[in-house]
This record gives sequence, C-alpha cells and structure tokens, in this order.
Amino acid sequence: MPEAASAQPTRAIDGVSEFDRDTAVTRREPGVYDIDLSAGWTIINAVNGGYLLAVLGRALADALPHPDPFTVSAHYLTASQPGPAVVRTETVRTGRTLSTGQASLFQLDEQGQEVERLRVLASYGDLDSLPEDVRTTAKPPAMPPMEQCFGPEDGPAPVDGSTAITERLMLKLDPSTLGWALGQPSGKGEMRGWFGLADGRDPDPFSLLLAVDALPPTAFDLGLSGWVPTVELTVHVRCRPAPGPLRVSITTRNLAGGFLEEDAEVWDSDDRLVAQSRQLARARLA
Amino acid sequence: MPEAASAQPTRAIDGVSEFDRDTAVTRREPGVYDIDLSAGWTIINAVNGGYLLAVLGRALADALPHPDPFTVSAHYLTASQPGPAVVRTETVRTGRTLSTGQASLFQLDEQGQEVERLRVLASYGDLDSLPEDVRTTAKPPAMPPMEQCFGPEDGPAPVDGSTAITERLMLKLDPSTLGWALGQPSGKGEMRGWFGLADGRDPDPFSLLLAVDALPPTAFDLGLSGWVPTVELTVHVRCRPAPGPLRVSITTRNLAGGFLEEDAEVWDSDDRLVAQSRQLARARLA
Repeated sequence: MPEAASAQPTRAIDGVSEFDRDTAVTRREPGVYDIDLSAGWTIINAVNGGYLLAVLGRALADALPHPDPFTVSAHYLTASQPGPAVVRTETVRTGRTLSTGQASLFQLDEQGQEVERLRVLASYGDLDSLPEDVRTTAKPPAMPPMEQCFGPEDGPAPVDGSTAITERLMLKLDPSTLGWALGQPSGKGEMRGWFGLADGRDPDPFSLLLAVDALPPTAFDLGLSGWVPTVELTVHVRCRPAPGPLRVSITTRNLAGGFLEEDAEVWDSDDRLVAQSRQLARARLA
Repeated sequence: MPEAASAQPTRAIDGVSEFDRDTAVTRREPGVYDIDLSAGWTIINAVNGGYLLAVLGRALADALPHPDPFTVSAHYLTASQPGPAVVRTETVRTGRTLSTGQASLFQLDEQGQEVERLRVLASYGDLDSLPEDVRTTAKPPAMPPMEQCFGPEDGPAPVDGSTAITERLMLKLDPSTLGWALGQPSGKGEMRGWFGLADGRDPDPFSLLLAVDALPPTAFDLGLSGWVPTVELTVHVRCRPAPGPLRVSITTRNLAGGFLEEDAEVWDSDDRLVAQSRQLARARLA
C-alpha cells in the first residue's frame, strides 16, 4: 500500500475541485446541457479526450436513471476547442439494472454552424448494487513507489506535449517507461504511472474516464513522436475506486498500418482493478 | 502454417455463402435497410451477437463512403429474434481517411411497436489504403494443429448452448480450453480455437465481426454456466484477413461484481493480428 494512499487529501480551497468545476454541465432543457470547456485540460491546444469523456459522462448521469458509467464508447469526430459547447443526450433504453444513453458534444464553427466533436454510446448502472464477488487473474502493474517516479516538474527533459493539463494532474511516471524523454524509447509500447488530481480530489467513476487517457501516448515508447489522435475509446468502469492515488498501466501490442491500440488498466489503492479501456488511435509513422 | 490454410476452400453450391446470404441487407430508402434475420445463427433461440454486428456492419458499408469497418462499438439493448428487422443508419461524419456512422436494428414487438435491439457507432476506412508497416509484440496464440482440436461434432459431451449456429461454423477448440465440457474448467478464463465458415467462405472484415463472438463464453472455463449476455462489444479490424482458417483466442482476466470482460484476438493464416475486440458481459455467479 503506498504511503500517500493513507494521507489526507488536500482539497481545493473553495471546496470544489477543479475537475468537478470544469466538468459541471448545466441543464438547459431535458437532455440538453451547456458547458464551457475549460482551457485547463488541454495538451498543445487540444482538449484532452478523457476530459471530454468525463463531461459527456456527467451529462448522461443526469439524463439517465442510473448514476454510474459501466461502459462508455466514444468516437471522436473533430477537435474540440476550449469554450462554450452543448451536450445533447438521448435515452435509448432504461432497464432495471442498466440503462443506455447516447450523447454528443457540439460547438459552433466560425460560420456559427454546429459541429459535432464526439459521440458516445454508454450503458449505466449502480456500482454500489453489485455483489462483492471477485475472481480475477489480473495483477496490479509492477511499479516503483511514487517517490521513485517522475512527473513533468521533475525535468530535466520537459514531457513532450504537456501543457495546461499537467498543472491539474498528479502524474508520476515509472522511469522504465520514460526512456523516450531521454531519446531512448524502450520499444515495448508501455506507459505506467501514478495518477491523481493535483488538488487532491479523490477518484470517482468520472475521473476514471479521464485517467485512462491522461498519460503520454505509448507511441512515444515505440519511438514515434507527434500527435496520436484517438479514433475511438471505450472504457469499462468495474468498481467504485477507493480514495488515494491510482496506478495506470497502458500497453500497445500492435502498431500496424498507421493505427495502434492502447489498452489501459486502472488500479486503486485497495488493489482493485477499477477500470479497463481500449482505444484505437492513428499514429504518424516516422 | 496449417495444412488447411492452403487447401482450396469449398464454396456453397449456388456460389453465395450462407454468411453472405444471411447478412445481406436490402436498401428500402437511403440509409434504411430491410433484413430477414436468419434462424441459422442462433444459440438456444438467441440470435448471435456477432452475426447481428455483421448485419449492421454491412448496412453501414453501404451507407458510408468507406468500405471497411475499422472500429465498431455496439451496445446490446434487447434480445433479437429470427425474422424481419429494419436497420436505420445515420452518417455522422465523412472524412478523407475515415467516416463515422451510427446504425440501429429494430424489430416489431407483439403489439406492432418498433423495439430497438442494438445500437452501433462505427468508424470506417479502406484497409487496402493502409501502409504495410507492422511493429507488433503480439504473438499468435499457442494452439495445437486443427486436427488435434475438437468441435461440437466430435462429442462425446455436446457443447453446451450450441444449436443452429454450430452447423454454419467450422469451430475446433483447443482441448486445453475444453475442460469445462467434461466438468473440469481450468479456471483460467481462456477459450481458443480454429474458426471458419462451414461452407468454406474465406474470411473478410465482416466475418471477423462474427468471429470475435462465436466461441463458447470464457465464463465456462471459469466454472460458471448459463447465459452470459453481452452488454457492449467493440471490435477493431486491423488488417484484411488472408484466405484460410482463423485462430481466435479469448481471455477474461477480471470477473467481478457480476460482470466480466472478454478480450478476443483473431489471427489469420499469414500470422497477422487481423482483429481485436473487447466486450463487457453479465455473468450469473454460481
């Protein structure tokens, strides 16, 4: 158990975390929500895909009768910009255990036309209603303790592509997956790190949607550089996370034809596998 | 290389394979398609989820400007029945390299009301346009040759839950993942086998959508029995498959709270990883 997991988290001074404030949606009418996408979650001017997923996730949690995202599938269409956006949701089916919804995020282009940024299909349930049974062969990622891991603030080499979002995250990467920052990528396609929110807010199902897409791309560890845009990202939330830092492990096994998959696992401080995700992304081959 | 991979495939006598005939959709108007869901792809009266995905995949291939499914995310809503159905598609975005669409399958209930069976978001491209580069650490599954594997016809124990669909598939399971059929599940959550269409039709991107959901559930290898309904299934098609039998490997690492993931890999006769999928399914805990 990491020492930091038992430490008292530091909350934002006004009592509202940056993540909660910046993912809050305002209901305009039933199923339609307004949001001002924050510039605080951008990487080189692009709004982080996990942050966008958390925004749509919160809108669907309001629109659907069940509170927690169980499985969320997002197809990314155009690049979102910081600023005003509208989320339109549709309740597809409501059931006793699960309900399914759809959500899209729109922004206005320079001509004032609505442009769709991403579309999501998601099935929601109640994590607290699930039985306690666990039969798992999955093991938490082998990783050094947090104090032996490195974040963007630990330089010397600045983490490529890290901008505003790094100030909002507590991200400490396993040095064995950081060779690329020194020009020596391992070629294994792995990225591992400790993850939390910088203001100490504890994880919940919505911050898990952010966590799976917040590490540097595994493509860097494969020796590629440059942008790796997500085509599709599906997250399964399997358990409500315990307080304390998360461990995130991302692996790519198959880079082929200019596309690669990124498989993420998120583990909580109780050693529970709390989320699994897979995305298909485009890689610019060097 | 398996011997059968180089053998001349046996085609259906009329030149149209069962799979092509039973997934053919008829355009009623732009974006709307009729289909008669065949009873030939059922397991204990339920229409196979991979077959349904192939039907929607073919409708979207007609509706979108790109021919091949790259990533298809399906959320299953209600149980489909053999018989008439309508597929409604929407073109969400068209781009140079990729286009994204949505499709839903509807059937009429006893009161004549349309009921949605499943909804799909999918991004399509052209597999033939991709560069040849492959940098993969993925290895084909270790599996005995086909003649040392077993299908439903090899008894003695009938494969639980196998009905009409087994007559349309060439399915030979690795005996090390078949202990459950003799009352001795390995507990590893693995299922592996050789896969093809019984009439010898060679694989294509649409039959890959079937292949990822055609083996017995890994839950059987975990000692569970009974129905394991799919909540969500996402498939990535990574490469156009070469002629010959496929190898399909499915693993479950985390059965928890009554849900499990099934990760499938499909390898072709050229040892290329041609598809990856993950589904979230519900398990009835014993």
